[in-house]
Amino acid sequence: MSASNVDLNSFQPERIAFELPAWIDDYCRAYSRSEVPEARMAYVIGAAAKNVEQGTGGPFAAGIFEIDTGALVSLGVNLVVPQGLSILHAEMVAIALAQRKLGVHELSAEGLPGYELVTSTEPCAMCFGAIPWSGVQRLVTGAISQDATDIGFDEGPKPDNWVEALEQRGIRVIREQQRVAARTILQAYADRGGPIYSPSSIRQRP
Amino acid sequence: MSASNVDLNSFQPERIAFELPAWIDDYCRAYSRSEVPEARMAYVIGAAAKNVEQGTGGPFAAGIFEIDTGALVSLGVNLVVPQGLSILHAEMVAIALAQRKLGVHELSAEGLPGYELVTSTEPCAMCFGAIPWSGVQRLVTGAISQDATDIGFDEGPKPDNWVEALEQRGIRVIREQQRVAARTILQAYADRGGPIYSPSSIRQRP
Repeated sequence: MSASNVDLNSFQPERIAFELPAWIDDYCRAYSRSEVPEARMAYVIGAAAKNVEQGTGGPFAAGIFEIDTGALVSLGVNLVVPQGLSILHAEMVAIALAQRKLGVHELSAEGLPGYELVTSTEPCAMCFGAIPWSGVQRLVTGAISQDATDIGFDEGPKPDNWVEALEQRGIRVIREQQRVAARTILQAYADRGGPIYSPSSIRQRP
Repeated sequence: MSASNVDLNSFQPERIAFELPAWIDDYCRAYSRSEVPEARMAYVIGAAAKNVEQGTGGPFAAGIFEIDTGALVSLGVNLVVPQGLSILHAEMVAIALAQRKLGVHELSAEGLPGYELVTSTEPCAMCFGAIPWSGVQRLVTGAISQDATDIGFDEGPKPDNWVEALEQRGIRVIREQQRVAARTILQAYADRGGPIYSPSSIRQRP
């Protein structure tokens, strides 16, 4: 394969679209609004499990919820391989869906309630950097970064003080919610031989 | 405005799409392939200027080029406000367009030539984190982060050693290519009163 004949002169797409897995609509309809944060995390971890079972992407899911009521605004899953786009981590998908639904480019826009991003694994360097732009007021995480790297994923060059960096920007961080359950999904994915899609970093490992 | 009645049960979009500005197609067709890196940067800065003039987004542009031949693969511009999505920084748009065009989720896929990301301003924390996942082998930047913060934009919690972090992953970084020209576009945007869309950070400023 050679792409040296590819030239933008030939075409530049007028739009980019990405599709969600067909099962997600039913899964969303089955959500029961909960004021209990643990229930929201369990629901998100269930989506990560479903994404693995259905073979529709990596073992990661993330949701945006109204903090006070538990209402679900959006549910994203990792779509990197099926959609062929490296930016489509679960958190990025959830953020984009929520902003489209609410019609704002920042979820902290005037007049909106407070939102949280609940993610089945701690964010990678990209998603960490995306969180302040999203407008969420709270980040809730399940499995820790080490759990992801243990199965071969790469979290990227995230600053060591990433939690403090978010807190300094007024974003509260709650970690290790149902970590064991979240880690189990990562392991299930590895056991199935699911693709680990960060080859450039892995190639650098000795 | 209250969104407390929004519930995913009502709907979850099956897809997300974002549109490029109408002028971009003509601008891409006018590209002259160049083996001179400075010419590629001048072309990208021109796209940032056009995005400001046309009022189609923030004062940032980025392109993916074949390193050896100078062939243009994709051209992205900042679309955060017009498309209502905080992830649509110019670099993210360029990466997504290039991956879709080439049919790979990583531009370093076997058999492809080496690609570079040429961006009119140094990447923010999110785009910095996205670069290793993109598969580019080289990053070329124009204006520095301080030039962006000088007009009120926020670069986010990017690690101080971000250049070294990329270099350690085998991504060469070339900075301050035509910085003065790139900075001029930022200032032109500020002078026009263009929206500075990182309000959550700005709100924290004393």
